Amino acid sequence: MSTDVAPAPRTVATPAPPADAVAPGTVITGVGAGRGAVVAPLAVLRAAPAAPADEPAPADPAAARTAIDDAFAEVASTLVARAAAATGAAAGVLGAAASIARDPALRADAHARVDAGQGPATAVEGAVGRFVEMFAAAGPLMAERVTDLRSVRDRVVARLLGEPEPGVTLDRPSVVAALDLSPADTAALDLDLVVGIVTELGGPTGHTAIVAGQLGLPCLVRATGVTALADGTVVALDAGAGTLVVEPDAATRDAVGRRAARERALAQDTAPGATADGHRIALLANIGTVEDAHRAAASAVEGVGLFRTEVLFLGRTDAPGLEEQERAYRDALAALGGRKTVVRTLDAGADKPLAFATQPDEENPALGVRGYRLVRTSPALVDGQLLALGRAAATADGPDPALWVMAPMVSTPAEARDVATRARAAGVGTVGVMVEVPAAALLAREILAEVDFVSLGTNDLAQYTMATDRLRGELADLLDPWQPAVLRLVAETARAGLDLGKPVGVCGESASDPLMALVLAGLGVTSLSMSPGAVPAVRFALRRHTRERCAALAASALGAPDAAAARAVVLAGADPEVADLVG
Amino acid sequence: MSTDVAPAPRTVATPAPPADAVAPGTVITGVGAGRGAVVAPLAVLRAAPAAPADEPAPADPAAARTAIDDAFAEVASTLVARAAAATGAAAGVLGAAASIARDPALRADAHARVDAGQGPATAVEGAVGRFVEMFAAAGPLMAERVTDLRSVRDRVVARLLGEPEPGVTLDRPSVVAALDLSPADTAALDLDLVVGIVTELGGPTGHTAIVAGQLGLPCLVRATGVTALADGTVVALDAGAGTLVVEPDAATRDAVGRRAARERALAQDTAPGATADGHRIALLANIGTVEDAHRAAASAVEGVGLFRTEVLFLGRTDAPGLEEQERAYRDALAALGGRKTVVRTLDAGADKPLAFATQPDEENPALGVRGYRLVRTSPALVDGQLLALGRAAATADGPDPALWVMAPMVSTPAEARDVATRARAAGVGTVGVMVEVPAAALLAREILAEVDFVSLGTNDLAQYTMATDRLRGELADLLDPWQPAVLRLVAETARAGLDLGKPVGVCGESASDPLMALVLAGLGVTSLSMSPGAVPAVRFALRRHTRERCAALAASALGAPDAAAARAVVLAGADPEVADLVG
Repeated sequence: MSTDVAPAPRTVATPAPPADAVAPGTVITGVGAGRGAVVAPLAVLRAAPAAPADEPAPADPAAARTAIDDAFAEVASTLVARAAAATGAAAGVLGAAASIARDPALRADAHARVDAGQGPATAVEGAVGRFVEMFAAAGPLMAERVTDLRSVRDRVVARLLGEPEPGVTLDRPSVVAALDLSPADTAALDLDLVVGIVTELGGPTGHTAIVAGQLGLPCLVRATGVTALADGTVVALDAGAGTLVVEPDAATRDAVGRRAARERALAQDTAPGATADGHRIALLANIGTVEDAHRAAASAVEGVGLFRTEVLFLGRTDAPGLEEQERAYRDALAALGGRKTVVRTLDAGADKPLAFATQPDEENPALGVRGYRLVRTSPALVDGQLLALGRAAATADGPDPALWVMAPMVSTPAEARDVATRARAAGVGTVGVMVEVPAAALLAREILAEVDFVSLGTNDLAQYTMATDRLRGELADLLDPWQPAVLRLVAETARAGLDLGKPVGVCGESASDPLMALVLAGLGVTSLSMSPGAVPAVRFALRRHTRERCAALAASALGAPDAAAARAVVLAGADPEVADLVG
Repeated sequence: MSTDVAPAPRTVATPAPPADAVAPGTVITGVGAGRGAVVAPLAVLRAAPAAPADEPAPADPAAARTAIDDAFAEVASTLVARAAAATGAAAGVLGAAASIARDPALRADAHARVDAGQGPATAVEGAVGRFVEMFAAAGPLMAERVTDLRSVRDRVVARLLGEPEPGVTLDRPSVVAALDLSPADTAALDLDLVVGIVTELGGPTGHTAIVAGQLGLPCLVRATGVTALADGTVVALDAGAGTLVVEPDAATRDAVGRRAARERALAQDTAPGATADGHRIALLANIGTVEDAHRAAASAVEGVGLFRTEVLFLGRTDAPGLEEQERAYRDALAALGGRKTVVRTLDAGADKPLAFATQPDEENPALGVRGYRLVRTSPALVDGQLLALGRAAATADGPDPALWVMAPMVSTPAEARDVATRARAAGVGTVGVMVEVPAAALLAREILAEVDFVSLGTNDLAQYTMATDRLRGELADLLDPWQPAVLRLVAETARAGLDLGKPVGVCGESASDPLMALVLAGLGVTSLSMSPGAVPAVRFALRRHTRERCAALAASALGAPDAAAARAVVLAGADPEVADLVG
């Protein structure tokens, strides 16, 4: 294999070196995500205990049944309490797990196994195993339920065995290390004490990386061997460099400290986004809940460029009603007090299955009935959401809300026209679509003729352009948003916006990369939406370059032969302080 | 919904009209596939019998066990005999089903159920159900096994109940109607008596449509209600018009007869493919086996544009050895007697899982480790095949073979360079890659700089460009190869070939559409590869237009606002005899 093609990633089965073999100063490389750098002790996510193979039959089956009921009830109430304390997607995940812990069918199955002579932990494992099998056979829609079931099992079994809850217990600010973090793992973390995340699996646009981005934490994925390090090992984690240094020396610590200090300094700047010559590029936040809207309103962003509305719909068996939706949208608009707010209509399907709308048997859900394509199977769901949005804008308190609404996964000008017709009929004033399917980028001009604006979803656009699953870390080199093919489609879309005088935003993860932000600004993109923690570095990078300089950097990236060369040529041409910032 | 967006397809659950309610002359519309038109009686695929709910416990369990063993053995030997008579993929499918019918674990499970008091048919259903559940839970790799298991179950249960074998028994040339045709269903058909295929489900690039194309049969998919028609109903099936007329009147029969006669007349012409002004466009065959190579050699094609090598690898638990592969390739090259033969390296993964190479747990296999990406996980498999190909070319009998080798699912110039390096090291002289990922089309110039030729796979290119699964019929309107976005990528690739003076072929289904062939010739494509049955109409269409006229038609298609308009504008501008041919 030539050196230009990434080698096959090492699999989980690769034996990790024993912890004591890792010398101080050892550098473990991975794929950086999130923001910044940190020096802190490592806390490795603890594996769940399993029922012992020789668990004895219960002497008193009635007592064993009661112990099982108590363990389920305690786990359920812990999860409910955590769900109440959590916000957004985490609350949904925890709530769903709590309802599983309360499911009488699960307890009844475990009771029957106890009565048949199994020990209580074995019985719980068996009962959960049966449901996992059923759900797994039911297709991808149920995959999330399987994760929840296993998470509940691990907690209940730990309680029955008198062991501490699986996961990680943080007593000081720590870098959390794991093979991979599930949504449930993340939800269980005490985020106030997490200062960084490092995983062996996952990809740069996967769940862990997105969470780290939202939290503004440094993160490293595909870092082989980190879970073999001893708990408490001090590490220097640098997302920009894509490295984790074991027991770093003083020089490394100082460099990381300087970088962190600089990031704090950058965060003091709250001016609107603009290039050095005053060309405005709006800096916006990606949010998912009303709570996020409040947080975004308190930070130095000019509005919201992507309000994901899935949280309202996920983890329930029927769609939220018109009033419930209207209230949520109105509250978010009110929180943002008149700042521009771009709401994305329901993007269900693919990795976000909905019990009441998703096609259950799709071989390739990412290529199936997802996003706006739901209009083919559930038009009332789409129209209902648009109506709730139109009403929310009309009735929101405070300053006039600047509500923009866009639909995901639109592929053709005809679909864009359909979005505009439906949204305007529902009372929405400013209507756009996401450009995340290659066809939409190729026909951006025709699509922009039908709507008021577009927003590039660079994660999905890269996924389809490179025919590479966002969920598969092994192909991360192909999925790189710096791939020249992806940049060309972005350039084509931005050019269409310039020609037609209509806004073209970017709300994919690439908007949060300061170097990529320069390229996007150079191509003519009018706004960048990202996790609020990423804004300061992007603001700083834009301020250090004129629009003309950005255009020159963009041209050099477009002409590069591959993704690494594209990034390298921009890094080499960028202002040294910005280059220093991103490593 | 605006009329430009296709309405949601009717589902299987939609009650079909009773057969006696369908008046003569009723027109059922669907999506045309395959070639031509035919008038013939309908034969509806018979559903499999189920064990009666009240099947009594066997009076003599030993006899019931023997009956089960006999039924499995008879089904196995029938399948083995059919596999021996079949060729290519059908042989593989039947062989795999036969090994399942011989599996002692299945019989043992059924015996245990008989001993527990179940009737023999119920026991077989239960045993198969248990294995289906296990395999379904094991992910997409096992999906094919599930189909085979069910097919074996249906045959065994029918035998136990003394009912005729499920499926369809043809006693005269017939149009076969089914909800959908599985590979096993197709393999069980007496193809000499099948003159057309019509299904309620499936998509225009799905299994049924591809089979019909290979057989040169008229085919209609997504034709709601056809299975409710009575067996023996005479129908006029017209793939070009996308219609099925129930009990057609004399005028309709005459029109179909004239069309069929014209197609037979076209097949007499065996000149090389060329435009009216003598610009050559090679007309090539798509094949999958050595037997196909013999058939192609006997037909008026200039060579093979796509030799799919998967058949050698599918349905077995280990990779074929170097000698076995070399022999198969050498035999195919010898059969083609020096004609150009483009071999595609293993395109496993996605809908063609391999037990020994496919990643088992992909959420979206079409976006996963498939095609040439196997080099990341199984480099020896890739190199072994290239070596076998290089040796076959060096040792083939007869005239010097013109062996061209290409790799599927290449996305970047670096991967193309890797293909060229490996293939040349293995002794392959002419090396190319498929252009089927949007990124490869966008960077066709850079990719062609690394290899000798490219071949456009329009089915997959449309799948990724439109982010629409080929396996999902509901989104067939998006998947149309006439989508302007897809045409633009084809145009970009062809332009790169013209500029660099390197061949650009097309081996997707769109090469077999005479109107699309004009567009492709106009864009600068140098060869068209298709099922041999499709060649005469394409040859005729090319001969009726100059290269300049083709270029004008291509330009008008590229400028159309949507797929339907693109096809319509080419239809309107084409020679009237060609327009008449395609409807």
